[in-house]
Amino acid sequence: MRTLKIASIPGDGIGKEVVPAAEEVVQAAVKAFGGVEIEFTQFPWSCEYYLEHGKMMPDDGLETLKEFDAVFLGAVGNPELVADHISLWGLLINIRRNFEQVLNMRPAKTFKGLKSKLADPKDFDIMVVRENSEGEYSEIGGRIYQGEDQIAIQSAVFSRKATERAVRHAFKLAAERGKKVTSATKSNGIIHSMPFWDEIFEETALEYPDFKTESQHIDALAAFFVTAPERFDVIVASNLFGDILTDIGAAIMGSVGIAPAANINMNGKYPSMFEPVHGSAPDIVGKELANPIGQIWTAKMMLDHLGEEKIADRLLEVIEGVIADGIMTRDIGGTSTTTEVKDEIIRRLQA
Amino acid sequence: MRTLKIASIPGDGIGKEVVPAAEEVVQAAVKAFGGVEIEFTQFPWSCEYYLEHGKMMPDDGLETLKEFDAVFLGAVGNPELVADHISLWGLLINIRRNFEQVLNMRPAKTFKGLKSKLADPKDFDIMVVRENSEGEYSEIGGRIYQGEDQIAIQSAVFSRKATERAVRHAFKLAAERGKKVTSATKSNGIIHSMPFWDEIFEETALEYPDFKTESQHIDALAAFFVTAPERFDVIVASNLFGDILTDIGAAIMGSVGIAPAANINMNGKYPSMFEPVHGSAPDIVGKELANPIGQIWTAKMMLDHLGEEKIADRLLEVIEGVIADGIMTRDIGGTSTTTEVKDEIIRRLQA
Ligand SMILES: CC(C)[C@H](C(=O)O)[C@@H](O)C(=O)O
Ligand SMILES: CC(C)[C@H](C(=O)O)[C@@H](O)C(=O)O
Repeated sequence: MRTLKIASIPGDGIGKEVVPAAEEVVQAAVKAFGGVEIEFTQFPWSCEYYLEHGKMMPDDGLETLKEFDAVFLGAVGNPELVADHISLWGLLINIRRNFEQVLNMRPAKTFKGLKSKLADPKDFDIMVVRENSEGEYSEIGGRIYQGEDQIAIQSAVFSRKATERAVRHAFKLAAERGKKVTSATKSNGIIHSMPFWDEIFEETALEYPDFKTESQHIDALAAFFVTAPERFDVIVASNLFGDILTDIGAAIMGSVGIAPAANINMNGKYPSMFEPVHGSAPDIVGKELANPIGQIWTAKMMLDHLGEEKIADRLLEVIEGVIADGIMTRDIGGTSTTTEVKDEIIRRLQA
Repeated sequence: MRTLKIASIPGDGIGKEVVPAAEEVVQAAVKAFGGVEIEFTQFPWSCEYYLEHGKMMPDDGLETLKEFDAVFLGAVGNPELVADHISLWGLLINIRRNFEQVLNMRPAKTFKGLKSKLADPKDFDIMVVRENSEGEYSEIGGRIYQGEDQIAIQSAVFSRKATERAVRHAFKLAAERGKKVTSATKSNGIIHSMPFWDEIFEETALEYPDFKTESQHIDALAAFFVTAPERFDVIVASNLFGDILTDIGAAIMGSVGIAPAANINMNGKYPSMFEPVHGSAPDIVGKELANPIGQIWTAKMMLDHLGEEKIADRLLEVIEGVIADGIMTRDIGGTSTTTEVKDEIIRRLQA
């Protein structure tokens, strides 16, 4: 039997609640279908780990993770314990960068029965392809002068290679969907990097003459996510713009608690990593309030990526079912606990 | 009698429809109150002007504008005629930069009778203070290498002076409002400029110990604009983040067609400039569909800035009145034309 080895890093806060819940769900789904075995191995790397060891993961952490088929991450960060840039760059971004997870994929779609934060939204189904390796999140920069003259400079770096890779992937995905690709830009205000981005988008678009393509400035695009999300199919965006759009995407779905993400390695050298969009939410820890759907939908993306599409599809179907039947946590208008939602999903998978 | 000289630049597209409408409204308001005279002088600087003259404004354009008490701008840009970065940097950003309009102020609030795009929004009333002179919109950058190795680099520049100025202004405003200031950051991903921004925000916040202050990452903040805009009072943001947030702010109000903006010169050397958030919308030109409220609310901000607070307050009151009574253009759910909305506002000002 095929065995998939998953490194599981629950991380901080509600990560430690929703990751075990999602693992249970995955095992139930796998048992219902058969044909594959999944082994989760837990790693306690987190802000608490940092407080004890002075680092977010051991020095050979990446070596260890490298042997797995995928990394299943909860939520990293708890600013009360460790400054965000330390915890995130020490774990999340460390893995993204070193494992060459060059794309970040995040869907946003309407769910039947899920009250969106939008008034009467039309049905939407968006996939954001976010460039995940460079752009605005470069490490290049620093400060100069002192006192009132002090200046900080941060350079955004856009390579043709990485930009083209993201754009191409967006077209590839769109070919299986609505054949429409929207590029997030801001070339009217950011006059070096964004016109470069636009050029690469336009060049690539020429190869797909039967696709609908458009460039939208990020400000207008963010507003359109609120006023007309049904306009979009696949969106390709820089690291920062993708980050912003997908949080709005989560909000218009109804809650950041349900949105998943996949950090994709494309050269096969390292595992990909799967993480929900939500944070560690220390304020609701231990209250059975955490929405497990984000982590479970994230598991669905992981199973898809690992070639277990049937199990993945079934998982999404069951998620849609429990939401349609109103079995939801409080953040999306329900009254169920984390455990109740998880148990009901398992019950349906076994039925 | 006090005479205010306003340079009026209708610009492109619907700018040429809503600027004259707003001028008429201003004159009606001024007539109703007395005590001041307003002279508008028109300048046809626009993309059409560019096609004829090869530039967006004459070489002595800034010299000419300098003599006015304020600049009243419509909408600039029509990508079908002139590339955005040429039209915008030739006019809008040219004026912002050369006239040291270092802050951009943009309100977003609920209106009675205006159907928001949000489902059951609580009342919100937000003022975004956007740093308007530097940050991500720097001119520093370029390209290196050719072919597939090509790289574009764009440097964001944050000075202590400009950052502190924006932050201080936010606190000053908040003192007259809800004493709550939120700083838009992204220091977890953008590790040089944004921690610098955070430090300056935190230092300044120490001087206002009785204020509520918080830093929110731009992704979360953008999502909160959708899920809980009532959480915010004054927000201070960088050039790019302010741009994005205020477009979302316009969207959650109900339409980008009503949102105003003020580009403020703070050293008294040059006039300030007032412009609506919406663009030139070439697709709806000539159809009487343009919402004049954005430009009229912009005029209200201009009158406030010029010390005519009474007239300004009355203008906002009348705007609120027509909206509450359903006299609105199609973009916000009404059936009235541009002219009908404008005429009704004038009728009420005269009543
Ligand atoms: C047109 C563009 C350069 C401009 C900006 O981003 O500043 C606009 O979006 C605005 O907000 O006034
Ligand atoms: C935590 C932060 C660095 C991260 C990002 O911006 O990439 C997060 O917002 C995300 O989207 O995964």
